[in-house]
Amino acid sequence: MPNIENTIDRIQELIESNAEQQLCDELNSYHSADLADIFQQLKPEERLKCITKVDEEKAADVIEYLPPQLQVEILGDIDEGLASRLISKLPHDEAADVLGDMEEDESQIYLDKLPQKFSSEIRELLTYNEDTAGGIMTPLVLTVFDNMSVKDALDTIRIKAEKENMELYYVYVVDKHNHLVGVVSLRNLLTTPVHLNISDIMSKDLVKIHVDDYQGHIADIFMKYQFNALPVVDLYDHLKGIVTWDDVQDIVEEETTDEIFTSSGIVTDLGDDDDDILTGSLAHSIKARIPWLFITLIGEFIAVTITNKYDKTFTALPVIAAFMPLLAGLGGNIGTQSITLMVRGMSTGQITLNEGWHQIMRETITGLSIGAIFGILVTLVTWGWQHNLELGVIVGIAMSLNMTIATVIGTCTPLVLKKLKIDPAVASGPVIATTIDVVGLALYLTLVTWYLIKL
Amino acid sequence: MPNIENTIDRIQELIESNAEQQLCDELNSYHSADLADIFQQLKPEERLKCITKVDEEKAADVIEYLPPQLQVEILGDIDEGLASRLISKLPHDEAADVLGDMEEDESQIYLDKLPQKFSSEIRELLTYNEDTAGGIMTPLVLTVFDNMSVKDALDTIRIKAEKENMELYYVYVVDKHNHLVGVVSLRNLLTTPVHLNISDIMSKDLVKIHVDDYQGHIADIFMKYQFNALPVVDLYDHLKGIVTWDDVQDIVEEETTDEIFTSSGIVTDLGDDDDDILTGSLAHSIKARIPWLFITLIGEFIAVTITNKYDKTFTALPVIAAFMPLLAGLGGNIGTQSITLMVRGMSTGQITLNEGWHQIMRETITGLSIGAIFGILVTLVTWGWQHNLELGVIVGIAMSLNMTIATVIGTCTPLVLKKLKIDPAVASGPVIATTIDVVGLALYLTLVTWYLIKL
Repeated sequence: MPNIENTIDRIQELIESNAEQQLCDELNSYHSADLADIFQQLKPEERLKCITKVDEEKAADVIEYLPPQLQVEILGDIDEGLASRLISKLPHDEAADVLGDMEEDESQIYLDKLPQKFSSEIRELLTYNEDTAGGIMTPLVLTVFDNMSVKDALDTIRIKAEKENMELYYVYVVDKHNHLVGVVSLRNLLTTPVHLNISDIMSKDLVKIHVDDYQGHIADIFMKYQFNALPVVDLYDHLKGIVTWDDVQDIVEEETTDEIFTSSGIVTDLGDDDDDILTGSLAHSIKARIPWLFITLIGEFIAVTITNKYDKTFTALPVIAAFMPLLAGLGGNIGTQSITLMVRGMSTGQITLNEGWHQIMRETITGLSIGAIFGILVTLVTWGWQHNLELGVIVGIAMSLNMTIATVIGTCTPLVLKKLKIDPAVASGPVIATTIDVVGLALYLTLVTWYLIKL
Repeated sequence: MPNIENTIDRIQELIESNAEQQLCDELNSYHSADLADIFQQLKPEERLKCITKVDEEKAADVIEYLPPQLQVEILGDIDEGLASRLISKLPHDEAADVLGDMEEDESQIYLDKLPQKFSSEIRELLTYNEDTAGGIMTPLVLTVFDNMSVKDALDTIRIKAEKENMELYYVYVVDKHNHLVGVVSLRNLLTTPVHLNISDIMSKDLVKIHVDDYQGHIADIFMKYQFNALPVVDLYDHLKGIVTWDDVQDIVEEETTDEIFTSSGIVTDLGDDDDDILTGSLAHSIKARIPWLFITLIGEFIAVTITNKYDKTFTALPVIAAFMPLLAGLGGNIGTQSITLMVRGMSTGQITLNEGWHQIMRETITGLSIGAIFGILVTLVTWGWQHNLELGVIVGIAMSLNMTIATVIGTCTPLVLKKLKIDPAVASGPVIATTIDVVGLALYLTLVTWYLIKL
């Protein structure tokens, strides 16, 4: 892989000095994935100049590697003829994605310009919801009939694979009505005597997905069975396409992003449109962030109300108020650690509900140990700072209890949510942080007030 | 896929009623990935009973789908002869992983029992660091020589693929000293006239990885180029093995977990041993959590010191103290949202350093808008509650400023860290939360004190 910063400098120089032939040679010497990286760093007008200098096959490949917004931007900027040639060179599922991301009238122009067969296949793909198997799959599948011999099948594959740019993962077997009846690996085909029948060597034990299956479900199946590709069927078991692992790669990344955002109190399924939180409209991004902040507001007002009951304590010994951020901060942090460990552990399957008790015990001991260490630290520092050992001990004890309770709340809540079949990522972060604030501060203020009265 | 809870009930009944034949039929009717799920829910003694009832081929498959601890546990519990038969049926990379996870003396026993060739190949794999390409790859690669004809190559593939249980992703081309010189897709081989030479049709433009490359780097390359498999070479370009996408799947999951844990202030590379934070020793898990909590402690003590300077304010109007958790809580939450969006956006490549300014502007506007909404809400609620409009306005203004500043800090810090080539996930969460506490509280207390003096 080239050093991307040097490369970009060199390419920008070539563009400025109008060294057309050199620019052309330089660009065509890179792998398409590298070119896509380079394009993302260039200015729009530089990108435009470069894309026309790359061989069309390679340019289509580059488009495939680019993020959706940039795909639409570049295709919209270049000559319409070139754009439709590039689109026609994309795999079916990519072409459908690109056209789906464009404005309706714009995509219509390209659909009319594309070769008849390709265009009608893309139109069919565009009818599926883009988050389902139908919206993800490619309809080009290598199939053979169940009544063929191995020799016929191999001949068919030679012809089909050459004519259409098909991936050779598995060879699917259909009957004459295009019902999916089996699968053969290429390895099997190549190593079986050629006179045998496909129906004798195919595996009928098929894992398949339905055109309407949602992407999260598809990703789960891929992660579980670890296939390279899975066939997609409709309600009547007609073979409609295949989903391949590289499509799933993108889904897994998306699902992980959703999990991370949800844990931080960002709503990922507003359902209004498909605006991206990072790049979409500002209004969308504000709407995604307000709901959990609002719930936090209510929770923290409860904390404010409780805290306000101790106004006499603050008047008597104002340093008590000064310690509140310390308690809330450390309780929040250790609680967040526990939530994160639990939510991620359940999402990767490392923690199951059965082991819940074990994990609660484990975290409680962890919370107690860390709480004890920090309690002692806080006692010593407070003693040294305020020259008041008793205050130090009370704050230290409050700190220990607070951290232990925060750990237990952070561990139990995701487990309870999971038990109630609610996604543990939802509500975890902000709500638990607020709960820990309320419980921790109430505990601390009760302790210090009791200590003040005792004095 | 079967309903797992019903299935487990049924299997446990069959075990209790000693219905050996029925149990055997039932178990063998499932896909190995489903059986692995079922095994994880069974008790150890039930698992032991079941694994001996499954055909050996399938049992080896099931072992492959199980998590590492369980693999070692089951193989240790069953008869030694069966265990070594199962190990010998695993793909090379899996067998090496399983043996690497065992105690040294235990793995030695199996290595001595395994077939000579297999055993020596595994011993070589065990010499590599398990986080590098050498520790992840399988050494069984389908190769042909560069001077073969397509016909000879196809014959070779037929023989090799049948003899050894090899995956057919790509066919790699080597010279007579086993130097990697090219790659051909099976699709190309099948569709090319058989008399042509391999060297004429192979692609020399190879993306390859080195045996010592670390897993994070390997995952990046796979995600970028979207290959199914990549060849692994040593320093002299000798072909040593291949890494396939399903190996990478596991790496990506691991790296994501690290990113999530790091963002929540959990240290993932303590470097002492490979203890897992969720399942490893308690001491390890405590050590992983203390460092950032300690830094939070220091940060919060700064907040305590600043807050303590306003003791007269608390004495004069104790409700001022009661509002502190509200300000810290909402500032922390909106700041965390911004950090999460930035860290994830940079990790998936959606946000690049070049777009940093744009993102800072965007987040500032978001922070201002949300800050204004929540500032007004807080003003109204405080006015209604405390019947003090001026206090409400001051708290509301503090809230707006606090949320805006939290958003800006949460957005800028990851960008600055990235610019300094420090992993933005590190330090982000806890440190920024503490910074927001300090800045937010200082601002709020200054404002209210100024308001009190003015009165």
